[in-house]
Amino acid sequence: MEIRPAREDDWPQIYPIFSAIVADGRTYAYPEGLSSDEAKALWMEPPPGRAVVAVDGDRVLGSAKMGPNRPGRGAHVATASFMVDPAAQGRGVGRALGEHVVAWARDAGYRAMQFNAVVETNTGAVRLWQSLGFRILTTVPGAFDHAEHGYVGLHVMYLELVPA
Amino acid sequence: MEIRPAREDDWPQIYPIFSAIVADGRTYAYPEGLSSDEAKALWMEPPPGRAVVAVDGDRVLGSAKMGPNRPGRGAHVATASFMVDPAAQGRGVGRALGEHVVAWARDAGYRAMQFNAVVETNTGAVRLWQSLGFRILTTVPGAFDHAEHGYVGLHVMYLELVPA
Repeated sequence: MEIRPAREDDWPQIYPIFSAIVADGRTYAYPEGLSSDEAKALWMEPPPGRAVVAVDGDRVLGSAKMGPNRPGRGAHVATASFMVDPAAQGRGVGRALGEHVVAWARDAGYRAMQFNAVVETNTGAVRLWQSLGFRILTTVPGAFDHAEHGYVGLHVMYLELVPA
Repeated sequence: MEIRPAREDDWPQIYPIFSAIVADGRTYAYPEGLSSDEAKALWMEPPPGRAVVAVDGDRVLGSAKMGPNRPGRGAHVATASFMVDPAAQGRGVGRALGEHVVAWARDAGYRAMQFNAVVETNTGAVRLWQSLGFRILTTVPGAFDHAEHGYVGLHVMYLELVPA
């Protein structure tokens, strides 16, 4: 598995993964039913952010996007989002993308990384981020309408990159 | 003072307030130096959100925008932002806008309202929201680069509108 910047010609492989994960309704509060172009505008983050893919040869296994969490006076804190092909679960793709993104943010000089909305029932992701050093700052109660469980909480997770 | 939906012809009065508050660097992590059109696209929120103005006759004293905090499966939680003309401080404009916005969210059927980034040193605003029932869920350390104080925290504030 290799992680490299996402290219224009990766999008046809990223979009089905994006669509399937959003339609599944368990992990992301993105608009449902986005066209390929709309989803691409949302996912393929322009500089100073970027998007990457995890690939096995020509096959896209997953993707991450990263960049400033806020503009202006909040732009020293990074954020990121992750999508792994459901058919490629269990191969360490999420961990490899997570480690890549944290290293990128550190190298780019961000002071911290913040995830704004990690679904609390997505325990695999929560544990993965915790293993990378993120901690749960709070859980916004009932902020996500889960396809199976109804209203569940969204964790705000945080990793300091530069000692305060 | 009256609060009513913001109209196209209010923008020439809203933009200088917006620009002054962002340039002041103490309360909002918006991009600096936005053109009038860019700021307008950001502030004049389209349906299902909306923007309102607090007016005294023809004079705009302040403005608020409101709408879903997230799309899709997060769209049952509202958020809002507020700007009060620095020259109209102390007249209860912020409180009137805050009360209006909370009533709007309740009437529109939102389950809660969340403020994602209240600058911790903006104690007037923090106390105002607390007096309207908001509580601080967490403070993201150092997430705002304050023009005077340097890195200060951003509060996540939350008001339940429908009992869980």
